[in-house]
Formats: sequence, C-alpha cells, structure tokens
Amino acid sequence: MSSSIAPEFEAANEKYAASFNKGHLPLPPGRKVAVVACMDARLDPAKVLGLEEGDAHVIRNAGGRTSDALRSLVISQQLLGTREIVIVHHTDCGMLTFSDSSIRAKISDELHERADHIAFLPFSDLKQSVVDDIGFVRKNPLLLDIPVTGYIYEVETGKIVQVKP
Amino acid sequence: MSSSIAPEFEAANEKYAASFNKGHLPLPPGRKVAVVACMDARLDPAKVLGLEEGDAHVIRNAGGRTSDALRSLVISQQLLGTREIVIVHHTDCGMLTFSDSSIRAKISDELHERADHIAFLPFSDLKQSVVDDIGFVRKNPLLLDIPVTGYIYEVETGKIVQVKP
Repeated sequence: MSSSIAPEFEAANEKYAASFNKGHLPLPPGRKVAVVACMDARLDPAKVLGLEEGDAHVIRNAGGRTSDALRSLVISQQLLGTREIVIVHHTDCGMLTFSDSSIRAKISDELHERADHIAFLPFSDLKQSVVDDIGFVRKNPLLLDIPVTGYIYEVETGKIVQVKP
Repeated sequence: MSSSIAPEFEAANEKYAASFNKGHLPLPPGRKVAVVACMDARLDPAKVLGLEEGDAHVIRNAGGRTSDALRSLVISQQLLGTREIVIVHHTDCGMLTFSDSSIRAKISDELHERADHIAFLPFSDLKQSVVDDIGFVRKNPLLLDIPVTGYIYEVETGKIVQVKP
C-alpha cells in the first residue's frame, strides 16, 4: 500500500483531544439547523457560518445538492429535531466544469466501467443551482415546511451572499 | 415564515470574511484526500483531523456512510485528483437508535407519506459500520485502488481510534 495521510491526521487529533472539553454535548443539534454545503476543500462551513461543536448538522456532498442529501435531511428532522435548512454552494465550483456525459466518458476510458446509473448533478448556472436546491427541499413531501435559506460562498473573499428564489 | 438563523450566520460570516486571506487557493484539494464523515453536530472534521481550508474534500451525511457518498467520491477522484479516503464514524451516533421500519412508521404517522424507497442506512454495530464502509469503497469498481483508513471518533474524549477491517 502507498503511504497514507493517517499518521498526520492522528498527530493533529492528539493535539485536539489534549484540550478537548466538549464531552458533555447532547446528540440533537443545539441550534436546530441542518446545513447542506459543497464538499469543496476551500469551504469550511463551521468557520464560514460561526458554528461550534454541537450546533448544527453539516451535510456535505459534491455541489451541496439537496436532492443527494434527502436521506440525511429526513433523519435530521424526524429523529434529531432540526427545524431549519441552510444551503451553501460556492464560486469556482467543480460542478460547473463537467457534464454527466463527460464524466461518464472519462470513467469508461480510464476505469473501463459504466456509470450511466449515477446522476452526477453538475450545473451550469451557480445561482440557479441554489434556487433549484431551495425548491427541492420546499417541495419534497418528506421534509417539513420550515425556513430554508440559500447562499453562495465566495471562495475569493470569504463572504456568503444570499440567493433569493 | 418563522424566524431564521440566517442573520446570525451572516453576522458570523462578516467576522470571518473581515480577516479572510485564503482567496488564492486552488480548486483541487492540496492534500489529495477525501474525508467521509457523519453529519453529527459534535463532530468538526476540520478540527478533529487538523484540516485547513484547501486541504481536503469533506463529504458528510447521516452516519458517514460511503455508499451514500459514491457520487461525490467519484467526482473527487476523477475530476479533482484525490488519491486517499478517510472515513470517520463516531460514538453515540443517531444511526444506532433506529431502523428503516421505525423511521418509515414515524414518517407514515406524522407526515402521512411513504418512505419505502429510501434506505436510511442505520446500523447496530458501530465498529462493523466502519468495516462495512471501508469494504464498500475498496470493492466498488468506480473507485480507485488507493489507501482507505477508517476511524471511530469518540464524542466523549475528542479522540479518533482506527478501525482495522
């Protein structure tokens, strides 16, 4: 096996655990909110939104797509009491750079596998992607009728800008 | 509409953006790793593993299940060059507290909707859930043959403990 980042993560964790004082926090999120954000490496939702341990569920996937977060959002609301959703997409997102057909062709060429059964959920219009994802959670019958706010995070400035549907 | 947490998030973001100096970071994760972790509010993967902005993709869902992260992992590897996966589940996880049938019954009772088409992916054995999720990514033909490490994060102590399959 090639070398792994695991020893670096374990060393960083030793430092975190050495001053850890949050062992008493309850399971349900204290601020009753679920954040759905992109997996992008430049976006740290806790820092960007001011979240402390115990505050919020943070669901992250490629693009921060709510349709791919449905299972988690239902669990968050039905079992753990969150009553608000905040969506965070961002500028310079990788989802703006490809299509289902281009990634499927790459997988076919390089892995010799078919990925026709996966919807990769790319988008060509960043603002519209937030509007679409707000619409998805507002209309889905498995999710509660609760406040939903959508933002674009600017990786260039560190700022969030609200998107109104 | 009921009151929203949005103004609090926006105020916190103003502070973050005021001292922001990471506007130059590239899109591909610098440390070439994708972390798959639970959405739990008490788990901050960046703090727990020592991640800075730009370091790693962070994919999060209920339980940190890799099967629910496949779309994002393929994008991460095929388009953005990650070459390692680190999985983080945790003690006192909500996924240990229910079954597909119990959450479906709750949804039927309270929302009058059917959720038979959703696999909620709960588990009854925490260590086994990490072993299963390591196995999923190792065996999936759409994912590369790269290092995979699994941990249990202890919400009581702040420590990560490696799980060997």
